Amino acid sequence: MYLNPFYTPEVHGPYEMISIGRLELERGGVIEDCRLAVRTVGQLNEAKDNAILIPTWFTGTHQAWIDTYIGPEHALDPSRFFIVIVNQIGNGLSTSPHTTDDESIAMSRFPFVTIGDDVVAQEWLLREHFGITELFAVVGASMGAQQTYEWAVRFPDRVHRAAPIAGTAQNTPHDFLFTRVLLDAVTSDPGFNDGEYASNTDVVEGLGRHARVWGVMGLSTEWWKSGAWRALEFETPQQVVEGFLEPTFTALDPNSLVVMGRKWQHGDVALHTDGDLATALGRVTARVFVMPISEDMFFPVRDCATEADLIPGAELRVIDDVAGHFGLFGFVPEYMAQIDHHLGELFAV
Amino acid sequence: MYLNPFYTPEVHGPYEMISIGRLELERGGVIEDCRLAVRTVGQLNEAKDNAILIPTWFTGTHQAWIDTYIGPEHALDPSRFFIVIVNQIGNGLSTSPHTTDDESIAMSRFPFVTIGDDVVAQEWLLREHFGITELFAVVGASMGAQQTYEWAVRFPDRVHRAAPIAGTAQNTPHDFLFTRVLLDAVTSDPGFNDGEYASNTDVVEGLGRHARVWGVMGLSTEWWKSGAWRALEFETPQQVVEGFLEPTFTALDPNSLVVMGRKWQHGDVALHTDGDLATALGRVTARVFVMPISEDMFFPVRDCATEADLIPGAELRVIDDVAGHFGLFGFVPEYMAQIDHHLGELFAV
Repeated sequence: MYLNPFYTPEVHGPYEMISIGRLELERGGVIEDCRLAVRTVGQLNEAKDNAILIPTWFTGTHQAWIDTYIGPEHALDPSRFFIVIVNQIGNGLSTSPHTTDDESIAMSRFPFVTIGDDVVAQEWLLREHFGITELFAVVGASMGAQQTYEWAVRFPDRVHRAAPIAGTAQNTPHDFLFTRVLLDAVTSDPGFNDGEYASNTDVVEGLGRHARVWGVMGLSTEWWKSGAWRALEFETPQQVVEGFLEPTFTALDPNSLVVMGRKWQHGDVALHTDGDLATALGRVTARVFVMPISEDMFFPVRDCATEADLIPGAELRVIDDVAGHFGLFGFVPEYMAQIDHHLGELFAV
Repeated sequence: MYLNPFYTPEVHGPYEMISIGRLELERGGVIEDCRLAVRTVGQLNEAKDNAILIPTWFTGTHQAWIDTYIGPEHALDPSRFFIVIVNQIGNGLSTSPHTTDDESIAMSRFPFVTIGDDVVAQEWLLREHFGITELFAVVGASMGAQQTYEWAVRFPDRVHRAAPIAGTAQNTPHDFLFTRVLLDAVTSDPGFNDGEYASNTDVVEGLGRHARVWGVMGLSTEWWKSGAWRALEFETPQQVVEGFLEPTFTALDPNSLVVMGRKWQHGDVALHTDGDLATALGRVTARVFVMPISEDMFFPVRDCATEADLIPGAELRVIDDVAGHFGLFGFVPEYMAQIDHHLGELFAV
């Protein structure tokens, strides 16, 4: 354990730590006291039919959703919905390698967690803690989209709407390798010490390399070339690297990145159907808007369109954004208007 | 110095080492005895107007051109043309950090070499060694395309045709960062020892990481997803990584990668015109076919199209290839037919 100041309420605003008890993991191992960091916004109505679940993305926490996606001016309107944002296991806020007081799973001993494990934990949380058994919608981006698909396939009768944004139901070979490159950058730092470092600052070189890999894949060639980065109020691309990418990623916990990265690599709803993706996605009864980002370098539109074609009644709603995957941060002004438009239509049916 | 078996005639077939003497470098420093590894095919005619220059790409040598692009069945037909393939400075065959016997530039002391330095060296070689002052064509891919553009801008009256394949005249901010990520992977290996390793095998971990970065950017998401890699006779993506990417790149010399990577980063014909790319490309009088590869992840078609628009009379000829940048290796069967078609038309005018 060590104190990483990024993973605190000072940075993240209020959130609640809720124990779901013992969680047996799909790939073996157990988290004896699995605690989820949860932020809720809005009120659950009496019928308990206005709940929207939001799972988090790689490196992301609930705060990105609070800052950018949720508010009275957005489709994710707290006056209408009870919004439950659940931080994924291992993300640094929910039970994680660097914060757990269970020595058997601390640091390098943290077990392999899957997208399915997160969804099982979230289902327990919603049912037992909040009394919610059906979801008005699940909305998630990137690894959150993986969890969204997992919900729609695993609990088809309990998810009425689903909006997977910039992510896939079945991870691709390219993204498996990309994720390995991301983790390579971190774990190759001698300071990583096989996961037994004393602080993320011991791994700052590796985390910096990880940041720059994100610069190549998280932001599009056109975002860099067109000068769209000037909207972040930097004067050179090098300043974007040093002033945005490196500070953002070097603040994170290395083992958290490893836990999330491995989880991402193995995300696949076809694990429920002996590898048959069409059958898995054919199960979905939710109304689904598949929402890739036009310039995404590693969840390209066509990969998402292929999956949309396998989901009964799904619609492909492409978000036009020059930033690419990091469009998710919402720093291109036209981004949120599109998200709100599509989610608004999804929520209206 | 150390002996790296990759950079030998056993692997590369015959080539000649030709000294061009002292080369003063654009960014300072000097190579006292600059030697270029040159492979020629075909015969120079009496008029000396049938010479085609081919500069090499990052990690590439003349052998890739011999193996795939040149032959009686190709547009690059040795019965018609005198083809001069010049290995770029620092590529492991021409004067390079790990082979030079000039201690002042050995290993980590190798100076910063630019695309312009290579073109100056090639111009000397052609004129003084071969008696060639005008080129029927310059054909180059990737970093070879950078050199091709440099030729057409620097010596506009001496280049009659130019075919820059899968590369740009002015390096983009994205590719600057991508190149940094490639070099990060190598130089971060403790075995790299600031360039003073005893053998590339000391840096095998870093070179392996470098290989996997290439797997993410050199090959397209669709190549991986569609299973097009099966044409390489591997059964899983992991086998592609372990059986193709890692062996290919771990054989290379780390300092060579650094020298070439920095050169790539700073490639920019607008250095001749105070940063004005339109003016630089407006100088070109060669007939130019700009030939990006459809699925290239880091020299996207639109970046090349933008440059083509600035070159008087240039045509954009897109090569359709699912592999992306590594389509250059020619492992998709339809690739060479397209190259031959376009080069054939270029050579016919």
